[in-house]
Amino acid sequence: MSQDIQSKLMVGILDIDLCGPSIPRMLNVLNSAVHQCDAGWVPVYVDKDKTMCIMSIGFLLETPDDAVIWRGPKKTALIKQFISDVAWGELDYLIVDTPPGTSDEHISVVECLRQHKPDGALLVTTPQAVSIGDVRRELTFCKKTGLPVVGIIENMSGFVCPNCSECTNIFSSGGGEALAEQSRVPFLGCVPLDPQLSHSLEEGRNFIQAFPKSATFDAINNIVEKILSNNNESSTLHT
Amino acid sequence: MSQDIQSKLMVGILDIDLCGPSIPRMLNVLNSAVHQCDAGWVPVYVDKDKTMCIMSIGFLLETPDDAVIWRGPKKTALIKQFISDVAWGELDYLIVDTPPGTSDEHISVVECLRQHKPDGALLVTTPQAVSIGDVRRELTFCKKTGLPVVGIIENMSGFVCPNCSECTNIFSSGGGEALAEQSRVPFLGCVPLDPQLSHSLEEGRNFIQAFPKSATFDAINNIVEKILSNNNESSTLHT
Repeated sequence: MSQDIQSKLMVGILDIDLCGPSIPRMLNVLNSAVHQCDAGWVPVYVDKDKTMCIMSIGFLLETPDDAVIWRGPKKTALIKQFISDVAWGELDYLIVDTPPGTSDEHISVVECLRQHKPDGALLVTTPQAVSIGDVRRELTFCKKTGLPVVGIIENMSGFVCPNCSECTNIFSSGGGEALAEQSRVPFLGCVPLDPQLSHSLEEGRNFIQAFPKSATFDAINNIVEKILSNNNESSTLHT
Repeated sequence: MSQDIQSKLMVGILDIDLCGPSIPRMLNVLNSAVHQCDAGWVPVYVDKDKTMCIMSIGFLLETPDDAVIWRGPKKTALIKQFISDVAWGELDYLIVDTPPGTSDEHISVVECLRQHKPDGALLVTTPQAVSIGDVRRELTFCKKTGLPVVGIIENMSGFVCPNCSECTNIFSSGGGEALAEQSRVPFLGCVPLDPQLSHSLEEGRNFIQAFPKSATFDAINNIVEKILSNNNESSTLHT
């Protein structure tokens, strides 16, 4: 997302959703392969200037339909490798994308990154109570594991009809902000349900380049600015 | 869902999303407790006639914010208990709700239920490619573990604006049906993005009773009818 907003930064994305790796498709590098060098696995670069690189199990599967039918210990071992055996180079930010939950992937990544003093967790919720409940439990996880919380983002926050411009809160609204207030963590902003955004992610197109004047661009930009202004040092975000 | 559609059936719902148990909220039994009897844990009944009962880790947590910070082996042990130590009684259907993925929870429940010869997996996707990719991997999981596939359902399939009735395919469309065709498994139908449905689930209200004339009711009813006509015997569905 922050690909163009902060093109001077070096950003790594680590996708530890081992059963559902979606980052390669969203960034249009679905068919890339990971190679070995002396320093370890070379991550996949998204742009010519090599400002953004990705590591995902998606690059290691023979076909995209392969299921990763692994119990926890195998997942933990690969996550350790992804952090210690990848030639990430000098990064300003390492963004870790996790699956939902508070289990093996989350425990493993928090343990592996502890020595690097991560900035903390970026929690993404949708507005409805069921999702808010999941994020409440993730807040408890952060507290118990000593991981700071960067803030909460509300996704799928209202849908504006492209025909009549009426905004419908399909999944109710305001849950993310209320949770942030209650939990005394920063609320970073809302991202609306936007067909242009979901189609861009679908096709691996760069939404930021394609729709720089959209309200959704502004919403995302504001969130990125808030995060960057809170974190001026080299750091790790865990979403 | 099928609570009223098939009120003569005895249905059990086993929620094995241990880190994000959402079933108790959706069925308005969030504050219920599970008790012990000689035959094991007594599941929580949703209705007076005791035709639908639930077991979820949500009933075992001290507060709803408690995080289940468990690695795989602990999750596996609880899932085994949920199947063997719960006084389910005589059921026509046991519906198992799993988290996304193909890991500990899925491997454990397939192993535990093998002796009961489950009807198979009911795979739910949203229309976009990222979600279709996840369900493809789940199909591979079913093939490798010998679990039959009952069919595919497409959720969040188009949004009808309540103001102007224009239908927008927020997440593209048709992905679920195309995947079912490609994979040669039955396509069971689409459920639209419906604010009335999501608000009902949010508040634990019975959508089927509240909106029996809605298009979404018809969509859900058609799916249930298809499943029941394919499965006339006592059986287990794994969603």
